[in-house]
Amino acid sequence: MITITLKDGSTKALEGAMSAYALAESISGGLARAALAVKIDGAVCDLDTNIDKDCAVEFLTFDSDEGKKVYRHTTSHILAQAVKRLYPKTKLAIGPAIDNGFYYDFDSDVSFTPEVLEKLEAEMKKIIKENIPLKRYVLPRDEAVKMMADKGEDYKVELINDLPEGEEVSFYEQGDFTDLCAGAHLPSTGKIKAVKLTSCTGAYWRGDASKKMLQRVYGTSFPKQAELDEHLAAIEEAKKRDHNKLGRELEIFTTVDFIGQGLPIMLPKGTKILQTLQRWVEDYEEANGWERTKTPLMAKSDLYKISGHWDHYKDGMFVMGDEEDGKECFALRPMTCPFQYQAYLNRARSYRDLPMRLGETSTLFRNEDSGEMHGLIRVRQFTISEGHLMCTPEQLEDEFKRCLEMTNYMMETLGLKEDLSYRFSQWDPEDSEKYIGTKEQWEEAQGVMKKILDGIGIEYKIGVGEAAFYGPKLDIQIKNVHGKEDTLVTIQIDQMLAQKFGMEYVDRDGTKKNPYIIHRTSIGCYERTLALLIEKYAGAFPAWLAPTQVKVLPISDNQLDYAKGVVAKLRAAGCRVELDDRNEKIGYKIREAQLEKVPYMLVVGDKEVEAGAVAVRSRKNGDMGAMPADEFVSKLVLEIANKER
Amino acid sequence: MITITLKDGSTKALEGAMSAYALAESISGGLARAALAVKIDGAVCDLDTNIDKDCAVEFLTFDSDEGKKVYRHTTSHILAQAVKRLYPKTKLAIGPAIDNGFYYDFDSDVSFTPEVLEKLEAEMKKIIKENIPLKRYVLPRDEAVKMMADKGEDYKVELINDLPEGEEVSFYEQGDFTDLCAGAHLPSTGKIKAVKLTSCTGAYWRGDASKKMLQRVYGTSFPKQAELDEHLAAIEEAKKRDHNKLGRELEIFTTVDFIGQGLPIMLPKGTKILQTLQRWVEDYEEANGWERTKTPLMAKSDLYKISGHWDHYKDGMFVMGDEEDGKECFALRPMTCPFQYQAYLNRARSYRDLPMRLGETSTLFRNEDSGEMHGLIRVRQFTISEGHLMCTPEQLEDEFKRCLEMTNYMMETLGLKEDLSYRFSQWDPEDSEKYIGTKEQWEEAQGVMKKILDGIGIEYKIGVGEAAFYGPKLDIQIKNVHGKEDTLVTIQIDQMLAQKFGMEYVDRDGTKKNPYIIHRTSIGCYERTLALLIEKYAGAFPAWLAPTQVKVLPISDNQLDYAKGVVAKLRAAGCRVELDDRNEKIGYKIREAQLEKVPYMLVVGDKEVEAGAVAVRSRKNGDMGAMPADEFVSKLVLEIANKER
Repeated sequence: MITITLKDGSTKALEGAMSAYALAESISGGLARAALAVKIDGAVCDLDTNIDKDCAVEFLTFDSDEGKKVYRHTTSHILAQAVKRLYPKTKLAIGPAIDNGFYYDFDSDVSFTPEVLEKLEAEMKKIIKENIPLKRYVLPRDEAVKMMADKGEDYKVELINDLPEGEEVSFYEQGDFTDLCAGAHLPSTGKIKAVKLTSCTGAYWRGDASKKMLQRVYGTSFPKQAELDEHLAAIEEAKKRDHNKLGRELEIFTTVDFIGQGLPIMLPKGTKILQTLQRWVEDYEEANGWERTKTPLMAKSDLYKISGHWDHYKDGMFVMGDEEDGKECFALRPMTCPFQYQAYLNRARSYRDLPMRLGETSTLFRNEDSGEMHGLIRVRQFTISEGHLMCTPEQLEDEFKRCLEMTNYMMETLGLKEDLSYRFSQWDPEDSEKYIGTKEQWEEAQGVMKKILDGIGIEYKIGVGEAAFYGPKLDIQIKNVHGKEDTLVTIQIDQMLAQKFGMEYVDRDGTKKNPYIIHRTSIGCYERTLALLIEKYAGAFPAWLAPTQVKVLPISDNQLDYAKGVVAKLRAAGCRVELDDRNEKIGYKIREAQLEKVPYMLVVGDKEVEAGAVAVRSRKNGDMGAMPADEFVSKLVLEIANKER
Repeated sequence: MITITLKDGSTKALEGAMSAYALAESISGGLARAALAVKIDGAVCDLDTNIDKDCAVEFLTFDSDEGKKVYRHTTSHILAQAVKRLYPKTKLAIGPAIDNGFYYDFDSDVSFTPEVLEKLEAEMKKIIKENIPLKRYVLPRDEAVKMMADKGEDYKVELINDLPEGEEVSFYEQGDFTDLCAGAHLPSTGKIKAVKLTSCTGAYWRGDASKKMLQRVYGTSFPKQAELDEHLAAIEEAKKRDHNKLGRELEIFTTVDFIGQGLPIMLPKGTKILQTLQRWVEDYEEANGWERTKTPLMAKSDLYKISGHWDHYKDGMFVMGDEEDGKECFALRPMTCPFQYQAYLNRARSYRDLPMRLGETSTLFRNEDSGEMHGLIRVRQFTISEGHLMCTPEQLEDEFKRCLEMTNYMMETLGLKEDLSYRFSQWDPEDSEKYIGTKEQWEEAQGVMKKILDGIGIEYKIGVGEAAFYGPKLDIQIKNVHGKEDTLVTIQIDQMLAQKFGMEYVDRDGTKKNPYIIHRTSIGCYERTLALLIEKYAGAFPAWLAPTQVKVLPISDNQLDYAKGVVAKLRAAGCRVELDDRNEKIGYKIREAQLEKVPYMLVVGDKEVEAGAVAVRSRKNGDMGAMPADEFVSKLVLEIANKER
């Protein structure tokens, strides 16, 4: 008798051994049809795996991430099979499943142009139609090497040789094609219903720039054509919203080769949005009890030696001068912390001075590789609403909550809150030399933070090894339009740097103590937040953020004076307004304003002049008809003041 | 017959040769008494100089800078005589007159402490009382060297040996003292009426850090004791106003050794003033047709090679990385120009786009020597209201004027306008390799600028060799509290960089042309302007700039709730207000607020609570009596809005 524990906790008794597939069939025909693979005691296996002892069993369908992975991994084998059928001299490297699809790296004389990809896709569909079963088998290492060497698959030989001693060397065979692979896989190629090859890029063998550049073909697959179509449409939509494309088209920013990658140039429209955000954040923080500092963007190496950055972060910094030639050596700052602490250290502090909240609109620099740069998201220089809060242990929980509330208010106002998730970033005890402080200090700091997070009641994932080198973090994560996740905001608890910098306060009992420090940002990096806003709104910003809020469009020169009066009224009310006084047809002017995604267009003809009115076209609500100019001004002023989305 | 031309253009006929002093006496007794020296055909000479041929004669009194110099130069000889009388082993170096006084450098075993300076001053007064005549004589070089070598005056020997071949070696003798000196000097020591030795510092022989450190004694002298007293009082006042002292005391900024010199840390109060200035400047510029950019603070060396900075300014830049190791080499920017030009270059431009006015709140970096740093005036990193205006030749004059008007408005509002002077900074044709462009281009650009300046009708000095390497400048100069002059604002005309960066516009006739570029700042460097404001107002800023505008001072805890209500009202009206809720005597609270130079103190006792009033103490106008809280709020809001000084 074999006892099976299913995912829902129920058990099932089998009279004898049977394949996982047979087990699924015995439960229901629908499950057997939907099952792609099976998880036995936590290990993902093929459906033909024999179940011959007590175990926990979970069937994987396309609904689960693991199921999707098996599905796409098999699709990548089908791609490799198609390549070998059409271009037999091609050598195979690796072909894993990834988020939303798969890729396979090839070493081939053939250039995988879009036309070639089409041919490969057709061949893949043939292989799918052939519904070839996949079979797993294991070979001794020397036989495995010999087989792959005979086929000329040099990369596979290298992979086998690099496998740890004692590891099983398994293969998957599907008809005329065999690949080195740990699995698991679908039972047959016919399970794949809809497939698409999306692109081909260069990729170094093993990601090493000193090795050969291979061709990486990307693709994806789905159990239904409709799902594939939807996915491809979403990618197209994401491309349109991509801030790195749209931001340039809308003249928000640009980059220039001879200035450098990761150093965006904010054009007047982008600068206006950043200025609007910055003033809002500064004023809101001030209203919430934050003072501001403005500290230098560089310091002597001496400072970074005290902070620990010289030992733990030097590679990430821009260094000027060489310590060895005996001159002063400076580095651009990758953080604001020890600079801002000097405001605390400027005089002796007592418990009466706490909490001390210091904010800064702070420009930082990170010496990242050129290859890692992306638009406004990965940059070498950025400006962040940085801040440090010095407090007593009793104040810590409340102040942490207030920091989080401030961020939540800002994200809600910007419309980004719904896209956020939380990560509790902890140290990695296995890699303790990356951090300062002892195990006990880390456990205490993380314990304090866990208590606070659980007290607030937010849902969070845990990220081991994602802490700052001086303390744990709450990271607020957001996915960009392509689904890539980045940290937007971080709030950290730090018990260590106050000690390093000799920051103290005299407590009620007259003793000197180190304050707790909360490192936090409110809105995050302005550049990154702007990138996410561009993608969120596809460039059609809410009026309060729009670089141009209104365009006044006279139909002809006859209304020019009146139009100028309307412009003056709007400007006096603090609105950002442009006049399109060109000698162009009104339809042309409207189309252009629409392309610029201006929230309001005011068309002015003779009728409007006579009535002291404006004909309002809203980007959001379309034609709103004519209304008195003053009424429109009041409406817009209110919409801006309320930061309506 | 000898014909003398006097300063007023009149002539006088002499029957024969006579001394300049006798000539002065022949004109008037008063002139003879006031005359300190004489200028004969432009050369400053002693009064006993014999006039024996036709010449132009001008008598120098203490009213002229040259007269003051002779007066103080003789005082420095008196100091040296006193030193030799009291400490005969001392060796003499040099002792010139300087602005507002003189110094003399000594090599002595005696340390010139304040007590020693007092003794020297007493000895100087004796020498003055002795009214010793000064006599000039010339020696052949070898005799001169021998005389000084016999006296053990090694520095003087070195000076004589370094005199150019053929130059006269002259001495001035006054009683028991003789000094190597070109002159001119007063006729006798008794001419000095009031003298003061002010300080002693170290100074390297010939300013060379590899040579011996000497003691430099500073002093000054005046024809009247009252003038000396007034001068010393002004120095004391200047010290009190010195932004580098007062700015730290008022917690506006600080510096920290391990961060570095010239890298000030703006504390919350300084940051608030800078934020206030910055928003005002940004908004005012925008209202005057300026758009804004935000461009990177660094670029690859490639950019600086195009701009010419790599060849002409590399030593002044912070460079990161080494070109020779083949990696990307970056440098922090010392200017905004080529960064901001990218906004112009972002698309093709036509005459319709001009003038294009681009402003930026721009942080810049200059790699200056540590020794050159001073408070907020000479720094390594600073933020400037930078801007570039691209225009057609026809627009140039009008736009230049508008730039100057904007600066004048800002300086007037800040109260600095009365302290400004103008300098037309030109290239130095003798040193043409410091500049880009040809002689013709420079003459054209300077010609255009001269025409504009003369058209505006401002008075200016000419500064040869003070131009930027790419064009002439109008520099707006200001003296700090110690009388040292610096450039606060500069407006430049540039014909060359547009060409270098390929900036063009399509003119009405369809041809492509390079625009003129005006480089300008409006308010200048924020740090430097702040330094001058601290000194101008001795830290007592006008309300609109004051970091804290009002302090509310409850007499006891009984009025605390009411006081909080007043604070809330002020805050809601946008005022910067602090509550002093400490359990201290009201007199103590008032004194402290006065030390912080807060514009308004609102004292709140039971009487005020009852009446819904506040007792107002104005920093400027003293006790203003009680008034309804709302009335005070309205008054203050108006004062701030009007930027009253």
